[in-house]
Amino acid sequence: MSAVVVVHGGACAMPEDLAKASVDGVKAAARQGSSVLKGGGSALDAVEAAVRAMEDNPVFNAGHGAVLNADGEVELDSIIMDGRTLASGAVAAVKNIANPVSLARTVMEKTSHVILTGRGANLFAESIGMATVPTDELVTEYERKEAHDTVGAVAVDSDGNVACATSTGGIRNKMVGRVGDCPIIGSGAYADNLSGAVSCTGHGESILKVTLARLILSHVEQGKSLADSSQLSLQYMGERVHGAGGAIVVSPSGQWAATFSTERMSWAAVDQDVLWYGLDPKEKLNEKLGQ
Amino acid sequence: MSAVVVVHGGACAMPEDLAKASVDGVKAAARQGSSVLKGGGSALDAVEAAVRAMEDNPVFNAGHGAVLNADGEVELDSIIMDGRTLASGAVAAVKNIANPVSLARTVMEKTSHVILTGRGANLFAESIGMATVPTDELVTEYERKEAHDTVGAVAVDSDGNVACATSTGGIRNKMVGRVGDCPIIGSGAYADNLSGAVSCTGHGESILKVTLARLILSHVEQGKSLADSSQLSLQYMGERVHGAGGAIVVSPSGQWAATFSTERMSWAAVDQDVLWYGLDPKEKLNEKLGQ
Repeated sequence: MSAVVVVHGGACAMPEDLAKASVDGVKAAARQGSSVLKGGGSALDAVEAAVRAMEDNPVFNAGHGAVLNADGEVELDSIIMDGRTLASGAVAAVKNIANPVSLARTVMEKTSHVILTGRGANLFAESIGMATVPTDELVTEYERKEAHDTVGAVAVDSDGNVACATSTGGIRNKMVGRVGDCPIIGSGAYADNLSGAVSCTGHGESILKVTLARLILSHVEQGKSLADSSQLSLQYMGERVHGAGGAIVVSPSGQWAATFSTERMSWAAVDQDVLWYGLDPKEKLNEKLGQ
Repeated sequence: MSAVVVVHGGACAMPEDLAKASVDGVKAAARQGSSVLKGGGSALDAVEAAVRAMEDNPVFNAGHGAVLNADGEVELDSIIMDGRTLASGAVAAVKNIANPVSLARTVMEKTSHVILTGRGANLFAESIGMATVPTDELVTEYERKEAHDTVGAVAVDSDGNVACATSTGGIRNKMVGRVGDCPIIGSGAYADNLSGAVSCTGHGESILKVTLARLILSHVEQGKSLADSSQLSLQYMGERVHGAGGAIVVSPSGQWAATFSTERMSWAAVDQDVLWYGLDPKEKLNEKLGQ
């Protein structure tokens, strides 16, 4: 079967001047994830690579480009999950780390824990020799624009294994230590080889209240399509807790969907040799990738 | 309809010398929660009161009685959730707070956030004037006994509103900043007036992998009984990720169950004027409460 990667750059009302940079960024990240899959990498490798690409791109609110909290600090959240074993790793409110998704993966692979927060996450990064970057370097000119949100990726590899990853700087002016949906298993992300992999974006507190990633996969488990499952869940979130958001989903058989109830969500997917992408509702453009 | 409260004092292999104290503790906490309900309090008030009673009791690993992490510190986690609105509040890796469940409730009621971690949770406690207690005071002689675990409570009030709360000191010798299932919505706890309220205990990382609280309620939503839903979910957790645990559940119509796959779980419930309680599998004792 064919391997697929889907990424999002955040669901929000994106101003025109950032829109093109955001779409270019998700397209590049999807290509990055796809190269990993084509080179024989696992779904887990692909989502890590795709999210790293967006963490390194200052247009997105994750890694470089993150927003400041109420104390003028950058606190980052990330999660990664392996659908084969349900293993996951997450870091929350971690500082001065350029690629929180890779720290989250190391939590998953090198500790007996699932979530490390705050100072503990930084102590762990130090113990494994992960480089730190000054806060100034993570903050960019984009910080001042109310535009960006969580980034994420889902993938299925040629063995039918699924994985997901999500990363964010959270919301501007958040309280110190505030953690949203992003690093929370079942809310910001979930991956299970028995159903699929999801990464969410949008109003974090609303996503938490309905555990959006698990909600979408519950509908998938009941036999609904990925797009219907996502739409039903986002509609429920709007009605029950008045929150908007978006989600990308991939199934073990290579189906995929990118759905949102916000004004816009930048997303891109590579399925076989076609790069699909969009920003506005119902927009689904494509380009043939060179061999 | 009749109001019900159910509490647990943790699922684990409990040594004989702690067993009686633990059962006495959950019975007292259930009575406490029941008094609140009988006095006209909400399900939310009842679960907070019941969990506070166990946080104040040094026999349980929550508040007074918590275990130490790898740095010799006490880091506490707690969550509370209101089934009417799906609102919830949680604190993770917070220090020097005697009743983390009440801090979690204040996060829910006084901030726009859901989860506050580490130093941020302590800054918030300070900002609302919540008293701190020295670490020494939280640690007791019981710390040295590998016995106790998360505590939790679920309740339904006479209006059919459900709520849950969970609180813990985590696992002994945990890494700094480690957060388990306890404060994670959908894993350690979940409450929804459309299905029921759950509080979980057991191997935290396994509970997170299967988002146990949501898994149990998914079965309830499919029409299964509370006991069957809990048993199926715990069995699945054992098979898929090799973890054991326990859960208490109430439904909006006043049904309830206390179920576990560990050797023991201390639990108690007040349903009408009867106090039910147990510790070993299939044990279900009762006492008539005085009027």
